[in-house]
Amino acid sequence: MKKVRIALLGLGNVGKGVWNILKSNKEAIMKRSGYDIEIAKILVRDINKNRTVEVPEELLTTNADEIFNDDSIKIVVEVIGGLEPAKDYILNAIRGKKHVVTANKFLIATNGKQIFKEAEEQGVIVNFEASVAGGIPVIHGINESLTANKIEQVIGIINGTTNYILTKMTLEGMDFESALKEAQEKGYAEADPTSDVESYDAVYKLGILTTLAFETDIDVNNIYREGITKIKSKDIEYAKELGYVIKLLSIVKEVNGKLETRVHPTMIPAIHPLANVNDSFNAIFIKGNAVGDLMLYGRGAGELPTGSAVVGDIISVLRNEEVPPIKRQYTNKELVAAEDIKSQYYLRITVKDQPGVLGKITTIFGENQVSILSFIQKPKKEDFVSLVLVTHDTFEGNINKSLEDIQKLNMVDKIKNVIRIENLS
Amino acid sequence: MKKVRIALLGLGNVGKGVWNILKSNKEAIMKRSGYDIEIAKILVRDINKNRTVEVPEELLTTNADEIFNDDSIKIVVEVIGGLEPAKDYILNAIRGKKHVVTANKFLIATNGKQIFKEAEEQGVIVNFEASVAGGIPVIHGINESLTANKIEQVIGIINGTTNYILTKMTLEGMDFESALKEAQEKGYAEADPTSDVESYDAVYKLGILTTLAFETDIDVNNIYREGITKIKSKDIEYAKELGYVIKLLSIVKEVNGKLETRVHPTMIPAIHPLANVNDSFNAIFIKGNAVGDLMLYGRGAGELPTGSAVVGDIISVLRNEEVPPIKRQYTNKELVAAEDIKSQYYLRITVKDQPGVLGKITTIFGENQVSILSFIQKPKKEDFVSLVLVTHDTFEGNINKSLEDIQKLNMVDKIKNVIRIENLS
Repeated sequence: MKKVRIALLGLGNVGKGVWNILKSNKEAIMKRSGYDIEIAKILVRDINKNRTVEVPEELLTTNADEIFNDDSIKIVVEVIGGLEPAKDYILNAIRGKKHVVTANKFLIATNGKQIFKEAEEQGVIVNFEASVAGGIPVIHGINESLTANKIEQVIGIINGTTNYILTKMTLEGMDFESALKEAQEKGYAEADPTSDVESYDAVYKLGILTTLAFETDIDVNNIYREGITKIKSKDIEYAKELGYVIKLLSIVKEVNGKLETRVHPTMIPAIHPLANVNDSFNAIFIKGNAVGDLMLYGRGAGELPTGSAVVGDIISVLRNEEVPPIKRQYTNKELVAAEDIKSQYYLRITVKDQPGVLGKITTIFGENQVSILSFIQKPKKEDFVSLVLVTHDTFEGNINKSLEDIQKLNMVDKIKNVIRIENLS
Repeated sequence: MKKVRIALLGLGNVGKGVWNILKSNKEAIMKRSGYDIEIAKILVRDINKNRTVEVPEELLTTNADEIFNDDSIKIVVEVIGGLEPAKDYILNAIRGKKHVVTANKFLIATNGKQIFKEAEEQGVIVNFEASVAGGIPVIHGINESLTANKIEQVIGIINGTTNYILTKMTLEGMDFESALKEAQEKGYAEADPTSDVESYDAVYKLGILTTLAFETDIDVNNIYREGITKIKSKDIEYAKELGYVIKLLSIVKEVNGKLETRVHPTMIPAIHPLANVNDSFNAIFIKGNAVGDLMLYGRGAGELPTGSAVVGDIISVLRNEEVPPIKRQYTNKELVAAEDIKSQYYLRITVKDQPGVLGKITTIFGENQVSILSFIQKPKKEDFVSLVLVTHDTFEGNINKSLEDIQKLNMVDKIKNVIRIENLS
């Protein structure tokens, strides 16, 4: 049995997951990989911290150089997260000709290009399966299983926190605030939930998927982004009436040679497989020109699921050391401007209960080339009635222009919400 | 660019898919794999047959030896199906030190052990991703992505024909015969549908998944098998009332160190992700001790989806020639006997509308340690009423004994159906 020594940078949730998996599944992993994987060093900030995992104290160190200067360590596993010092550590490891496994979505999404370039120069492998959708093998899927395909579109539910919140709102009728509070109590949401509920987290992951699936460089700042804080119980209820479910989708697709990349709450048909991805589960729906529709579903976070991906990556490094990596010549695909993205829309508008109001509104839509597919008027409540409109496919620019004019009408109280609809054929 | 010459055995649906993908995605595949893959020879039965694919006639041959004796051919792709001559061809290729890619579920399920043994001796690779669930990378998933896991259970919808039929019965209220007819017209079902509707096809695929997921040899004849012909519109309707959907599930799980392997129609909760796998789609639900629940969903058949898996396997051979395969020491895990399998049951029984009948039936169940969870009596129809009973978890042996006695009751017309329920927690 060949022995291999690895180091962990960080012993948070994912680090603990990696430790526990390598311990509890040791025998099976040895048998399958042919390697006895030993965690030789673990970088932590505080050696004396109370931990929920039993790790021999002599493995812990606060000095990263002890790891980088140890030639017997072959793989560095970065599970700290964030930009620095993670980036510095990873580049140090690469320059010391150590392979790297990382779960760091932010770093890969924003600095992946430099990291992969240096890794190629040094002849080492950088694996990052755990950076998107935890235990779901989506990176591997795109990089290995689907190599025969031109990928046409990737649509993901890749943030577990917001999916948990939207599920609670949909299935239990909770409002956003209560659902967020419950997510925080369960440990799914941070005390400051901004990164999840405002979709920053999903944007980084979509950036990584875009780069792989479309072999293009992308600046994540150019990905269109909307959060879920605007979703009200009323919208969830009306969506259900219309046969839809609201999900936070991360979408990238090629349209006339350009890429649409966007993250926003979306109404999707209740019978689509993505509509039944509930709680904190993640799923990625991929369309390839050969494979057709493919969906990968599973746990997008948690110490063991994410640890599963990290340990899978470690084994993959050991087995594939001599394999030339899949070659991708990244281009710089042009992105579709937000106002040029075509979509159906759900609109909820409160208006005074006066004759003629619908006529004025639909006239404005008509003038802006927005055509209405369906319309429901809701019973009066506190002087106003709610109009729920569903449009045909239309450009975002036309919707925005229409809504500007509609907002100015005397009879109109408020544009309550605007949510995209994807019929996901 | 390195050139590699391969041969196709067969030019049916899958063969055409492989040809078309290698042609239409040639550039992307070359870029990613670093290889220019050339189909050098295609074995067919009749060179002059009319084909829906344009292949230069000089590539076609009816003489398999032209392929086996050609040292410039590195990979043989077997897409004929069935036992012979496919087995003979594959062994010939292996003995000639050619790598093999096959889509042949029957052959791998029944003769895999010999094939892999000879391949190991000759130092060649045998890839078979397309043998289970077409374009879905389930073999790769189990073999590569989940190596860090002990797999605890695999539950699949792995026969597209029966899933299409059950979907039509469920969503459109068709009866079995009309749904089968439609499946035949669409080309999803064969003129003789036995292999699909009696679950032989699913049994082969479950055999392959069992071997990989549990690292055990298994004789597919020992897999418990039921077809879907017994499912009536009434059962579909009552399932819906109870909150269930009927699917043909292929199940393998480890229970107290033994394996349960079974293929049968099953009621599953309507909110489970597998319940929404409709039409001819396939899905495989895997539970790993690290990754938790994982589901892979996609096209289980069709020339391009299956071709996608085959071409992915070809590229994988080229990239992994030097990689030692994942090692699995197969054991011979003991199977749970059918009568010892525990499950909930749905029972539909027609009885005379007389007082005391329910008392007699429930007494018999009680005597056989079967406890009833719920009970619905349906309105009278032609002298009889239907009783729909749902049991708690119970052994199949106890159900069978109970039903034997119940059948003998004067008041009982007929045991109309017995369907297992899996609550898939």
